[in-house]
Amino acid sequence: MIQNPIPLDDLNRADKRAFLATLGDMFENAPWVAEAVMARRPFASLAALFSAMTGAVAASSREMKLALIFGHPDLAGKAARAGDLTVHSRAEQSSAGLDRLNEVEYAAFQRLNDDYRAKFGFPFIICVRRHTKASILREFERRLALDNDAEIEAALAEIFRIVALRLDQRITAADRLAVFGRLSTHVLDTWSGRPAAGVAVSLWERSESDDTLIVNTVTNADGRTDAPLIHDRPLPIGSYELRFALAAYFAGMGASLSDPPFLDTVPIRFSIAEAEGHYHVPLLATPWGFSTYRGS
Amino acid sequence: MIQNPIPLDDLNRADKRAFLATLGDMFENAPWVAEAVMARRPFASLAALFSAMTGAVAASSREMKLALIFGHPDLAGKAARAGDLTVHSRAEQSSAGLDRLNEVEYAAFQRLNDDYRAKFGFPFIICVRRHTKASILREFERRLALDNDAEIEAALAEIFRIVALRLDQRITAADRLAVFGRLSTHVLDTWSGRPAAGVAVSLWERSESDDTLIVNTVTNADGRTDAPLIHDRPLPIGSYELRFALAAYFAGMGASLSDPPFLDTVPIRFSIAEAEGHYHVPLLATPWGFSTYRGS
Amino acid sequence: MIQNPIPLDDLNRADKRAFLATLGDMFENAPWVAEAVMARRPFASLAALFSAMTGAVAASSREMKLALIFGHPDLAGKAARAGDLTVHSRAEQSSAGLDRLNEVEYAAFQRLNDDYRAKFGFPFIICVRRHTKASILREFERRLALDNDAEIEAALAEIFRIVALRLDQRITAADRLAVFGRLSTHVLDTWSGRPAAGVAVSLWERSESDDTLIVNTVTNADGRTDAPLIHDRPLPIGSYELRFALAAYFAGMGASLSDPPFLDTVPIRFSIAEAEGHYHVPLLATPWGFSTYRGS
Amino acid sequence: MIQNPIPLDDLNRADKRAFLATLGDMFENAPWVAEAVMARRPFASLAALFSAMTGAVAASSREMKLALIFGHPDLAGKAARAGDLTVHSRAEQSSAGLDRLNEVEYAAFQRLNDDYRAKFGFPFIICVRRHTKASILREFERRLALDNDAEIEAALAEIFRIVALRLDQRITAADRLAVFGRLSTHVLDTWSGRPAAGVAVSLWERSESDDTLIVNTVTNADGRTDAPLIHDRPLPIGSYELRFALAAYFAGMGASLSDPPFLDTVPIRFSIAEAEGHYHVPLLATPWGFSTYRGS
Repeated sequence: MIQNPIPLDDLNRADKRAFLATLGDMFENAPWVAEAVMARRPFASLAALFSAMTGAVAASSREMKLALIFGHPDLAGKAARAGDLTVHSRAEQSSAGLDRLNEVEYAAFQRLNDDYRAKFGFPFIICVRRHTKASILREFERRLALDNDAEIEAALAEIFRIVALRLDQRITAADRLAVFGRLSTHVLDTWSGRPAAGVAVSLWERSESDDTLIVNTVTNADGRTDAPLIHDRPLPIGSYELRFALAAYFAGMGASLSDPPFLDTVPIRFSIAEAEGHYHVPLLATPWGFSTYRGS
Repeated sequence: MIQNPIPLDDLNRADKRAFLATLGDMFENAPWVAEAVMARRPFASLAALFSAMTGAVAASSREMKLALIFGHPDLAGKAARAGDLTVHSRAEQSSAGLDRLNEVEYAAFQRLNDDYRAKFGFPFIICVRRHTKASILREFERRLALDNDAEIEAALAEIFRIVALRLDQRITAADRLAVFGRLSTHVLDTWSGRPAAGVAVSLWERSESDDTLIVNTVTNADGRTDAPLIHDRPLPIGSYELRFALAAYFAGMGASLSDPPFLDTVPIRFSIAEAEGHYHVPLLATPWGFSTYRGS
Repeated sequence: MIQNPIPLDDLNRADKRAFLATLGDMFENAPWVAEAVMARRPFASLAALFSAMTGAVAASSREMKLALIFGHPDLAGKAARAGDLTVHSRAEQSSAGLDRLNEVEYAAFQRLNDDYRAKFGFPFIICVRRHTKASILREFERRLALDNDAEIEAALAEIFRIVALRLDQRITAADRLAVFGRLSTHVLDTWSGRPAAGVAVSLWERSESDDTLIVNTVTNADGRTDAPLIHDRPLPIGSYELRFALAAYFAGMGASLSDPPFLDTVPIRFSIAEAEGHYHVPLLATPWGFSTYRGS
Repeated sequence: MIQNPIPLDDLNRADKRAFLATLGDMFENAPWVAEAVMARRPFASLAALFSAMTGAVAASSREMKLALIFGHPDLAGKAARAGDLTVHSRAEQSSAGLDRLNEVEYAAFQRLNDDYRAKFGFPFIICVRRHTKASILREFERRLALDNDAEIEAALAEIFRIVALRLDQRITAADRLAVFGRLSTHVLDTWSGRPAAGVAVSLWERSESDDTLIVNTVTNADGRTDAPLIHDRPLPIGSYELRFALAAYFAGMGASLSDPPFLDTVPIRFSIAEAEGHYHVPLLATPWGFSTYRGS
């Protein structure tokens, strides 16, 4: 079970046992990192704690680094199927749908895991909260082409991203480590010159084989959704489609539409490349045309 | 086999046998219509010939009209499957894909044919060249709700539309009967301020179950396609999707794109409601946004 | 001198003299309105106070109402030129530029004042903070066509608008009376897919004879101006022009522009019709095209 | 008086006197160029004639070239004021308004002419049909910075442009020399999904001191103007403004507009940099927003 977050001040005052119970699992199967920084308390901020922990890893020997990498499970691998993951790994792999692969996808992941193991010897590590299945497969291919040293650096960088997100969930402090992304939309009715209220909007994540519904919502009086479509987390890098029920909206506004309406459900297909970026993807529409763009 | 077109002047001078060989099958299984107008030659125009023939039908008795309607095959019915259609009907039903229905669609057509027969007694007639499978099913539903007299008028109106298209193909004259529709597109690159040349564009007809490729083309130096996407025929009423390979184009222009690109293949989904209308559906695009609208 | 605002609670506890000193001049030259409501204290809100005062006027005799109207100065009239206005009237008339009329405008106002006096006998009253010179002249014409009773109602409605704004400035309370408008802009660079920072933007009020600069500013990192272009006041009804220095911005972004640039300073001309409305007038631009619309 | 055009075939057969009468004034005050090419008849095309004449100039001595340049009048100079121009020069200088300068502009031209004479010794030559007053002044400044040889080349290039336009007017042939530009517009009503017919459109040339009306027209049923706004001539390089009477159009369409309308007359300000380019500057509009872009 994911624990309730603990104030940084409490952690600064905790005894060794409580300290390790809280931070021992931040680095997967590597409680030594927490132990290495315990004596450096008090930490003035989450950033200071994070810096101390990543610094301890960076200062460690190549063997220690490799051991840290080896401590991670295969992605979407047999451990995931068998339920043998740590509580953190299970939640993270689930966020990208890696626990719900179909046979073809599972086979693709197995093949890349095997190729990767054959080349590097250690498991592939990626901060899955920043990715979709499709972008993980692309990263897999990209990193398979790196040399050994570059790939060790890449794996450590991903481990640090994972730890930053874990620390943010585990510890409360005045600062936060993670820079979250945000995806939002906005529907402007340029036919009547006002925000389009009551437009049904859905967001879908696209993959080669199918589309997965992320959120189904309706615009409010300001033409926006009450909450951003994705927020308070990294944006999974990948391909998306927004669908706007435009004809239903304009019929309700009393516009005279053709039969069938020229524009009915309007799909806007786009990709997210920056997990920490702000993406605003608005729709400006009349019954006879529309615009969209990457806004802010 | 569809015959080669014959000049109207030749028809005006033809003997009875040649005249009937040319026009006898314009009205399905009703050579009497051609016979009824033969003595009124010469016809100054296709329009005059058409007017004489439709006038003969309009002036005929209710029984003759019903017989005319009964002379038509069921749509997508057993006759189509058994290959028992006239050469005209076969070509026409093929144009809307009625000869390539899957089992679910075939069952839907059978059910509607049966309901229609049960209510009106005669077969459902529609000018299929103006329709897609989806719009035929919608028309079926709509006309099932009409009363008997209104439906006889509706059927005759469709027969006249069918005959106009057949006459246009059979006879050459200074005038043409059919008012054809036109669907075209145009890609404007508002990033570099010029027409977007070399953009791969495809047009798909959409149905509930799948998308059917209509045309696959590439924009020319003026950002247009060398020929309209659909022309020289009525536009089949229905739902379509244009797909523009935008990222490939802008990568070729040297634009710095994100990875994956914010916009890759851009789909524009729209419907055609007027078979005889002009639809211009352009794309104005940068790597970061686009507009479309019904143009002319 | 305009006094510092006074808390409503203090007013509720004030003695008669202080109460009248505070509210006696809310209605122009009519301290009796304040006196009429003094005994109804305490007022729970500004709205309650406003309602009591306007109610006292509404309940008064036709003679009292006419006297109230007669207590107002001519608009842009001799009193204004001679400096004989109350402190409130002077600030208000100045806000619409009525103290800076050229001879032609002054003559137009004089003529309308005279016509109005000739028809109704009393001075023309309008809440000038909601207007520009041009819209005042249009209202003058429109109201000159009303009959006597309708015009008395129109004049009282304007007086109530004036008083609402005055009370808001004089009294602080949990609620505010006035519904303020807001005019804002936003520049989106759809050439590089980001907010356009550092774009020089100016807002001009347009009249027949000339344009008056309202504000000169620069977009911030979010493509917006740090403060709305007009806010915390009613929007003067009238015609405006926003000017965006687009070529300078895109030259700074390294875009290759034509010489002279296709788009240099982009003017967007629009009118405000709702003094209490929210007008968002954004610019979406590349070096080769732009869009604008009434947003929210 | 400008002569009627003469067929190239007639010219090929003409005697010496007629030949020189036709071509002797193509190069300003330099009939020797025509004489030099007479023996090379027949010319298969205008292009061949033009190539022969410009080749004769290019092959001539530096002294001959300088003499050719000296044979031209000052731009907007005393000769123009005194009426001492050749018939060609008068028509050409008039096309850019150089015969209608105000005193400030006249002084600017005089100063640049003087500076230019002081530096190069010969008169400034430019193909004025490709320019506006503003762009001529900019070219003046730019070329003042060139060295002597570069400026002689620049002057000859302009002379060749002038001659190409003159030959095109004087001789008819299967080919034409000049590549003309074209400026057009198009109004799309995206509120009702059709071309906007009956929209009043005017085109203005802008200078620092005032705007000059170029054309006043109305859109036809296709939302276009019956003729391009400028065509069959080079586009004068400079700044322009298109003005569209949008509110009047939408009021006529029955749209409910605010009072005053949000968009009334819409100005689109743009510059032409390529005298031989095609500029299509459309307006896509609703009562509440619009787009424009450089189209084709």
